[in-house]
Amino acid sequence: MIGTAAKRVDTPEKATGRARFISDVIVPGMVHAKLWRSPVPHARIIAIDTSRARKAPGVIAVLTAKDLPVKDLYYGPAFKDQPLLADGVIRHAGEPVVAIVAETIALADAALPLVAVEWQELPVVDSLDAALAPGAPVLHERARPAVHFRDLTSLKPIAGTNICHQYSYARGDLDRGFAEADLVVEQTFTFPMVHHYSLEPHCAIARVDPTGITVWASTQHPFPVRKEVAEMFGLPLARVQVIVPYLGGAYGNKSYTKIEPLTIALASHVRRPVRLALTVEEGFKTVRRAAVRYRLKTGVRRDGTLVARDCEIYYQLGAYADVGPRVVQKSAYTAAGPYRIPNVRIQAYGVYTNTVVSVAFRGYGVPQLTWAYESQMDVIAERLGLDPLELRLKNVLARGEVFIEGDRPVDCDYAGGLRKAAAAIGWTEPTPPRRGRGLACTIKAPLAPSVSSAMVRLHADGSATLLTATVEIGQGARTTLSQIVAQELALPLDRVRIARPEIGMSPYDQATSASRSTTLMGLAVLRAARDVRDQLLAIGARQLGGDATAMTLHDGAIVAPAGRCRYAEALAAHFGTGGELIGRGTYRGERGHAPLGGEAPFWEVGMAAAEVEVDEDTGRVKLLRYVSIADVGKAINPRECEAQEEGAAMMGIGHTFFEQMVYEGGQLLNPSLIDYRVPVMGDLPDEYRSVLVENGDGPGPYGAKGIGESGLIPTAPAVANAIARAVGVRITDLPMTPERVWRAIQASSPRFA
Amino acid sequence: MIGTAAKRVDTPEKATGRARFISDVIVPGMVHAKLWRSPVPHARIIAIDTSRARKAPGVIAVLTAKDLPVKDLYYGPAFKDQPLLADGVIRHAGEPVVAIVAETIALADAALPLVAVEWQELPVVDSLDAALAPGAPVLHERARPAVHFRDLTSLKPIAGTNICHQYSYARGDLDRGFAEADLVVEQTFTFPMVHHYSLEPHCAIARVDPTGITVWASTQHPFPVRKEVAEMFGLPLARVQVIVPYLGGAYGNKSYTKIEPLTIALASHVRRPVRLALTVEEGFKTVRRAAVRYRLKTGVRRDGTLVARDCEIYYQLGAYADVGPRVVQKSAYTAAGPYRIPNVRIQAYGVYTNTVVSVAFRGYGVPQLTWAYESQMDVIAERLGLDPLELRLKNVLARGEVFIEGDRPVDCDYAGGLRKAAAAIGWTEPTPPRRGRGLACTIKAPLAPSVSSAMVRLHADGSATLLTATVEIGQGARTTLSQIVAQELALPLDRVRIARPEIGMSPYDQATSASRSTTLMGLAVLRAARDVRDQLLAIGARQLGGDATAMTLHDGAIVAPAGRCRYAEALAAHFGTGGELIGRGTYRGERGHAPLGGEAPFWEVGMAAAEVEVDEDTGRVKLLRYVSIADVGKAINPRECEAQEEGAAMMGIGHTFFEQMVYEGGQLLNPSLIDYRVPVMGDLPDEYRSVLVENGDGPGPYGAKGIGESGLIPTAPAVANAIARAVGVRITDLPMTPERVWRAIQASSPRFA
Repeated sequence: MIGTAAKRVDTPEKATGRARFISDVIVPGMVHAKLWRSPVPHARIIAIDTSRARKAPGVIAVLTAKDLPVKDLYYGPAFKDQPLLADGVIRHAGEPVVAIVAETIALADAALPLVAVEWQELPVVDSLDAALAPGAPVLHERARPAVHFRDLTSLKPIAGTNICHQYSYARGDLDRGFAEADLVVEQTFTFPMVHHYSLEPHCAIARVDPTGITVWASTQHPFPVRKEVAEMFGLPLARVQVIVPYLGGAYGNKSYTKIEPLTIALASHVRRPVRLALTVEEGFKTVRRAAVRYRLKTGVRRDGTLVARDCEIYYQLGAYADVGPRVVQKSAYTAAGPYRIPNVRIQAYGVYTNTVVSVAFRGYGVPQLTWAYESQMDVIAERLGLDPLELRLKNVLARGEVFIEGDRPVDCDYAGGLRKAAAAIGWTEPTPPRRGRGLACTIKAPLAPSVSSAMVRLHADGSATLLTATVEIGQGARTTLSQIVAQELALPLDRVRIARPEIGMSPYDQATSASRSTTLMGLAVLRAARDVRDQLLAIGARQLGGDATAMTLHDGAIVAPAGRCRYAEALAAHFGTGGELIGRGTYRGERGHAPLGGEAPFWEVGMAAAEVEVDEDTGRVKLLRYVSIADVGKAINPRECEAQEEGAAMMGIGHTFFEQMVYEGGQLLNPSLIDYRVPVMGDLPDEYRSVLVENGDGPGPYGAKGIGESGLIPTAPAVANAIARAVGVRITDLPMTPERVWRAIQASSPRFA
Repeated sequence: MIGTAAKRVDTPEKATGRARFISDVIVPGMVHAKLWRSPVPHARIIAIDTSRARKAPGVIAVLTAKDLPVKDLYYGPAFKDQPLLADGVIRHAGEPVVAIVAETIALADAALPLVAVEWQELPVVDSLDAALAPGAPVLHERARPAVHFRDLTSLKPIAGTNICHQYSYARGDLDRGFAEADLVVEQTFTFPMVHHYSLEPHCAIARVDPTGITVWASTQHPFPVRKEVAEMFGLPLARVQVIVPYLGGAYGNKSYTKIEPLTIALASHVRRPVRLALTVEEGFKTVRRAAVRYRLKTGVRRDGTLVARDCEIYYQLGAYADVGPRVVQKSAYTAAGPYRIPNVRIQAYGVYTNTVVSVAFRGYGVPQLTWAYESQMDVIAERLGLDPLELRLKNVLARGEVFIEGDRPVDCDYAGGLRKAAAAIGWTEPTPPRRGRGLACTIKAPLAPSVSSAMVRLHADGSATLLTATVEIGQGARTTLSQIVAQELALPLDRVRIARPEIGMSPYDQATSASRSTTLMGLAVLRAARDVRDQLLAIGARQLGGDATAMTLHDGAIVAPAGRCRYAEALAAHFGTGGELIGRGTYRGERGHAPLGGEAPFWEVGMAAAEVEVDEDTGRVKLLRYVSIADVGKAINPRECEAQEEGAAMMGIGHTFFEQMVYEGGQLLNPSLIDYRVPVMGDLPDEYRSVLVENGDGPGPYGAKGIGESGLIPTAPAVANAIARAVGVRITDLPMTPERVWRAIQASSPRFA
């Protein structure tokens, strides 16, 4: 069962169209909400006239911020700085200002143009430079209260500026380090805003009744949503239910609270269930990845030994913080890369601008940083005349070496993985002209500490139900977690059912995020299943005679030296009539002595190799081969691991070549699939594969560790390094469009010098 | 919290119309079913032509028995003798023969007359006499397989007859007993068919998809429904979900499998969710209480000592067995009453007739038997010139006395309860002419052995969720069980939420029936809450220092000699971030050495006293005073106990005075509230009350024991005894309509001799 490519448990539902997503949910009596969004990026609201809209056919209510029945209008997982509806000030184009609730979506839509908002425009801050300029308009005049997060170690919004958060780290003596260096390389890399583009946009349906709040939500974070909703509406946690159907993709865009509290407030006001479903375009105006400008300066000895690294990183977070401060510090924590560098300084800043809010995004800030440090590794290799692989092997941390004092030592074989990547791409083979190969690797810190619980019920007929709040977002978690139960209880997979997340019933899980589910929820599931197993063996010992420790489970039966007993028989004898066993399991991370948050339960690592061919006349880069190395510890389901890895790398191909949200004057110019290009199957190279490294060295079940994010992180630098080795130009800004590559070639070519 | 009249937790929902019953459930895409029911009571089906109905507008499918996609067409909790749709033979008028599935109920209804069924009528057996006559037509030519029930100890359908089941019991020497008697009284009592009439008729909505079956059902028995459905459709238990909204009343009519499997079969066939909602009239054609004819012969000494009792009981079960065989034996087990009688014989027979199927009904056969033996006690008293109270006190079993060898000894104070009843009604006070007072008492064996599990989750903010599959049928179980959690965890009631029964998520519970929920599920809940409490105290010991045994819970905090710590603080410190405690508890009854089923966890007992005034000219009986004595052990919620008791007694008033399903030629003449009279508030006497006896002698939480059925059992004999004492006539057939009383008075009057 473990290590086999078990068929996904959700395939039959999904292949037949029977899988239920939130768009398949009808709550009796529900009505529909639409949001009037600001056309301007920065303004003070003078007046809002909703009188005409209120009289429109089918309109039930038209609400502004002041009408919402909430204890606190502001929400956010780091600071509570984001109002449910604009509260006097508009801070980005597309910000919701007025909500209309009507009998149908069409009637709500029809009433939107009847809303009249009078505003006074304010100067727009839509870039890092504008935000950081002396005397720049300040988006948030007063800091909002911070949420208690144990790992928000350095909450330092700088009053009177647009700096929302800072993080810093240092070790060694940076000046001495650079003084010892034979070569110092300093570059600035940029990574643009990109949109998650999950196929399913955000949707929530809320019902408020005397028992409390129920919200059906397309969320990866049902428990954090519950917590924030309970606080905003002043209810005990027990009185807030969050029900999560299948999700049509979630890459961080559906983490933490999004449209749920607004939908609840509307339902509370109109006393009917309310559904709020965003369009794709509204999704673009709701979430994005943080854009990053990373000035990276590295000192290195002639032999390639890294001696000093100075990292200055600005994250453009957007109009509100969301989880940006945590992205800043969690990713900056690994900004120097998985290398042995004695002298390091990291300074990171999260910056407010009048743009869409940046939120968690697969990779959690690390793709933006790896883009810089892995590109620069090749620049250093080139400048020193070293092989990029050799340079990395010389500096990369070995298993057991300390990454950051107090945190988990490196738990993987970087050198082995890099060699695998190089071998897989034919690193040492000659390349034809205009072709090149590139390598990259990364390290990502997981969410820590964290908690997950699970329950396993063994029914009277020996079939089992797994209760877990892990959300199926397409990643295959339901299959993997079911496999663990099937393995531990010696059952075929089709006799294990996994219940959907419904937090009134499912046990606690902190989050479906940070590549943690298989590993950490997996441990909770393993423990719950083993709890059932232990109960079964104790029953078997009474039924069959003998010692439970001498018994095993096999093919749905308790097997003892004295004989065997099917689970159904054992339970019938134990309970007399009906009855079932309930197992419970919890994973609880330790705080440890790590400087940031808790001790990493594992390090998420990845390596990739790319081969490209560059058309120097057009700048078009053809990706010929791509290999992703996933250090999975143990692949519980190898096919699903490969699918995760290759899906991630494909997402990496998107931001490497195409994706970029384009702003002009605070207006997003391309909030649709007509103008915003995501990768499609035709963008994949003919040779596109992943290699799973299984050293059994993870903390999860059977030695598993988390993957699913690492696949997209090294893509851009591996490709940029390949381009550099193909045609000698170094791209430092993403995406690497033909135009950008062509211009770089032109700029570097002596023909045009 | 315990012993207080806490407000019902469902009152706000129910009072505001927000409580969701199954009629409030919309499953996206659902279509509707209607059933073509036989107009004749007994027939062989020659042909069914569905072609015209299939072509009717909006009709999706028209199915007969042979079209249903089931492994086994037959179901039933005792024998699998009932087909989902008539299978070649029609056995009662109103039996479903053809199912129509259409886009709307109206379209399905419109297609019903287009179904053409050709049949050959068979002789009708619609009474016990007809069914038991030599050469009577036999309804079931071959016995269907019996279901494995541990307490079906004597499954003896007699082949070639209409006797579906027999039960017998004997002790002592009956002949010698009667020989020793100074007086032998022999009478035959009858109890007619009555309908449960819950306000909400049966309804089910079924969905079949690749993950399995989901059925929303108005059922008291979600787990037994799951078991039978899993068997009928060949699925593991884990792949059958049963979701139970609030029930609009359930008195046994919603126990075991009813319309759920047919609805599922239809959904499976049409590949869309299907809803089947019965009308009130269809309810009358679906379920009823078993009619009983009880020939009771008792031998007694001159001083009132009972010495022998011979009980011959025929139950008219109807066209199919349903749970009738278990009703037969479980009630017949107590047919001799709660008396000390050395020589006893009980012979009980369940009989098939061409009438609606009898199912479980509040009291489970015992009201029919108590009607006889408690009436006869007064006949004996009258014949011996003894006071009926004294006669009972002389013979009634004392606490600790054996009722039936091997089973639980008597666990209550009958004598004390009877004296309370007598005192409450003013037993010894003189009565005006045509007024009389009557007493009655009863004993009822509970479902045994049985199993219930519960889980309690303590959330991060110190609020709690209780998971239990106990169904709220109006009896207040959600309130009582929540009170137990609140008590054990020292929380106010509004911080405890109880999740609805959804058996994919709720732990196992055998049944909401047999007055077992507060007592037996209550024990599971108590244990689950104490499991949480123990975990909390262990955490407290680490937080506060000291020994967990020296700590208590008070007002949402752990209290130690060294200090106190609120639950939320304790959990935050324990888990670091998020997380919750999960407690589990199970009640598991023991088989013991009881001759029938398992050892009773408690005996359900009841006493009642009535005072009536009889109008001799009209036969109208006016109930002047009514007192019900409920031996509750401990009233966890006294107000709810009283409501249960008084609601039950009101139901007893119904069958005492009005209720009777009238058959003629196999046709039910009064299947509607126009023609079938149920009790209304105006039928209640001015003095109508209950007295709770709290001796703390129950096995449940805080000494509780089950009530809820006992209230209706003594009503009829208490009233009949009062009538006899008022006007000297003995009624032996129910209901005691004015006509029947008048005729009895006329027959007994020397004026007309």
